[in-house]
Amino acid sequence: MRITVLAGGIGAARFLRGLLAYRPEADISVIGNTGDDLTLYGLRVSPDLDTVMYTLGGGNDEAKGWGRADETWNALAELQAYASTPWWFGLGDRDIGTHLVRTALLSEGRSLSEVTTALTARWQLPVHLIPMTDQRVETHVTVEDPDAPEGRRRLHFQEYWVRHHAELPVVDIEFDGIDRAAPAPGVLDAIAAADVLLLPPSNPVVSIGPILGVPGVREAVLAASAPVVGLSPIVGGAPVRGMADKLLPAIGVDTSAAGVARHFGARLHGGLLDGWLVDEQDAAAVPDVEELGIAARAVPLLMSDVDAAAAMARAALDLAEVVRR
Amino acid sequence: MRITVLAGGIGAARFLRGLLAYRPEADISVIGNTGDDLTLYGLRVSPDLDTVMYTLGGGNDEAKGWGRADETWNALAELQAYASTPWWFGLGDRDIGTHLVRTALLSEGRSLSEVTTALTARWQLPVHLIPMTDQRVETHVTVEDPDAPEGRRRLHFQEYWVRHHAELPVVDIEFDGIDRAAPAPGVLDAIAAADVLLLPPSNPVVSIGPILGVPGVREAVLAASAPVVGLSPIVGGAPVRGMADKLLPAIGVDTSAAGVARHFGARLHGGLLDGWLVDEQDAAAVPDVEELGIAARAVPLLMSDVDAAAAMARAALDLAEVVRR
Repeated sequence: MRITVLAGGIGAARFLRGLLAYRPEADISVIGNTGDDLTLYGLRVSPDLDTVMYTLGGGNDEAKGWGRADETWNALAELQAYASTPWWFGLGDRDIGTHLVRTALLSEGRSLSEVTTALTARWQLPVHLIPMTDQRVETHVTVEDPDAPEGRRRLHFQEYWVRHHAELPVVDIEFDGIDRAAPAPGVLDAIAAADVLLLPPSNPVVSIGPILGVPGVREAVLAASAPVVGLSPIVGGAPVRGMADKLLPAIGVDTSAAGVARHFGARLHGGLLDGWLVDEQDAAAVPDVEELGIAARAVPLLMSDVDAAAAMARAALDLAEVVRR
Repeated sequence: MRITVLAGGIGAARFLRGLLAYRPEADISVIGNTGDDLTLYGLRVSPDLDTVMYTLGGGNDEAKGWGRADETWNALAELQAYASTPWWFGLGDRDIGTHLVRTALLSEGRSLSEVTTALTARWQLPVHLIPMTDQRVETHVTVEDPDAPEGRRRLHFQEYWVRHHAELPVVDIEFDGIDRAAPAPGVLDAIAAADVLLLPPSNPVVSIGPILGVPGVREAVLAASAPVVGLSPIVGGAPVRGMADKLLPAIGVDTSAAGVARHFGARLHGGLLDGWLVDEQDAAAVPDVEELGIAARAVPLLMSDVDAAAAMARAALDLAEVVRR
């Protein structure tokens, strides 16, 4: 069975681990969000790709969810000692090894997808991890800031999220460079050839949003023969993790399981979803979602461990069979 | 008193520590060799500048002589895990912090001398450390290699030294880019304004050689009003440290205290040296050196500790007073 997953960071990585536990024999392609990518001290950092790679490769920091296990922080301590400005992005020493390899290969003219193949080879990943695009797309948010000229400030998504803990009110979100981006080699094929397409419980705005925003990707999903099933990242009116509740209002979407389903839309009516899983505590939303033309089920959506994630993957694949045309 | 020192790496750093112990109030400028600089995984590395900076800043690894104290090696372990080729250059995690700052500032368009000022500010160095040039000069050696086409191979000096432990026979040494290099801001002034000019026991070929090879530097030393005193890096017919014995023959110089003095030449006859210190065990060379027109003394030249290095600095400054015109 060929399964293709559009993936953000931690939520997607944990879901994928569950999917692999449930279907170890499946041929899984992961199209990774690169809108969070950034350059730090000359290093090209791909937070979502690395979170998936480390998690599925067994090298991740399980408690934090991102970064490497057995990490040390000495290079970062030095950066802070040299710089007078505070440092806000976690760059562990082992993690820097990854960024050095990526940066060096990119500077030799290799594409991000080629580099990703080279990096994942070391981890012997049980999935094909493909960046959404080889071009640079960087998510920026405009926030309210009384101290800034005109009361607004535009900053890289990572700075908003990691440095400011998503505490600044967001008024706009832009994916810089996305109009000039093209799907990386393999992306459209992975969508067209899939037996099932899954949207894991990743942030709909800044994780799934950029992937679908790469010209051609949304169209490929709409044209795919495979059923498309998503899992709600909103449980009980709040994101399980992350800051989707700060970003959804900025694009006019309700912070609810049904609101996100409405945002993606029903394939029946030109949208993306054939099926949508909501958490048990949002069971009341099932009729609302079905009224949109999307098959819905209420199941536990908290990935407390691999077994819980595997049960979610099973529920998603079961729903895909129900809606398969 | 203004003292200007032309410096390589470990030998110069240890001598400078002695000089500072003996003359803490002196105004010391250090013109650092950058011929050993190289790019590793996109990082700009300046081994000699960093050795001087770490040593005088109190952040060096005392046992190794190069690199940082309390170092960890996790980024390098990752580089090795990703790459199939063996890794030969020691890049510690703390050290990488320095290289990241240097690389980032250079990529912003700052010059190496500006970057060096920024880096040394953190260490509150008791000397002015100035790279010999802001342009890239990279020392390459041509070695005999039966497995290479035509039996010869050209490689970066660091690769020859660190990777091959100076075990390949050297047939040529070139300082790539030196013809287009200019002295960094402050270099010529530091030479012209000095009350004493010192050549510490650094490698005459690949440490002092490139500094003097930057167009204008040798001329500035020849024109300086200050006495020029050097310390032999050769003791008992062998280098105290390093591989000068492998390189001196390649440029036709005897591996002896007198041979190196002859190589630098007497100021009396258009060369560089007013005075030359040889080790006690080379006392027999003193008449040979003096016959060249260079004042010579035999003193202990092994820097077993800071006191020994301070005694060497004292001997050098004493000799400078003897030869002052």
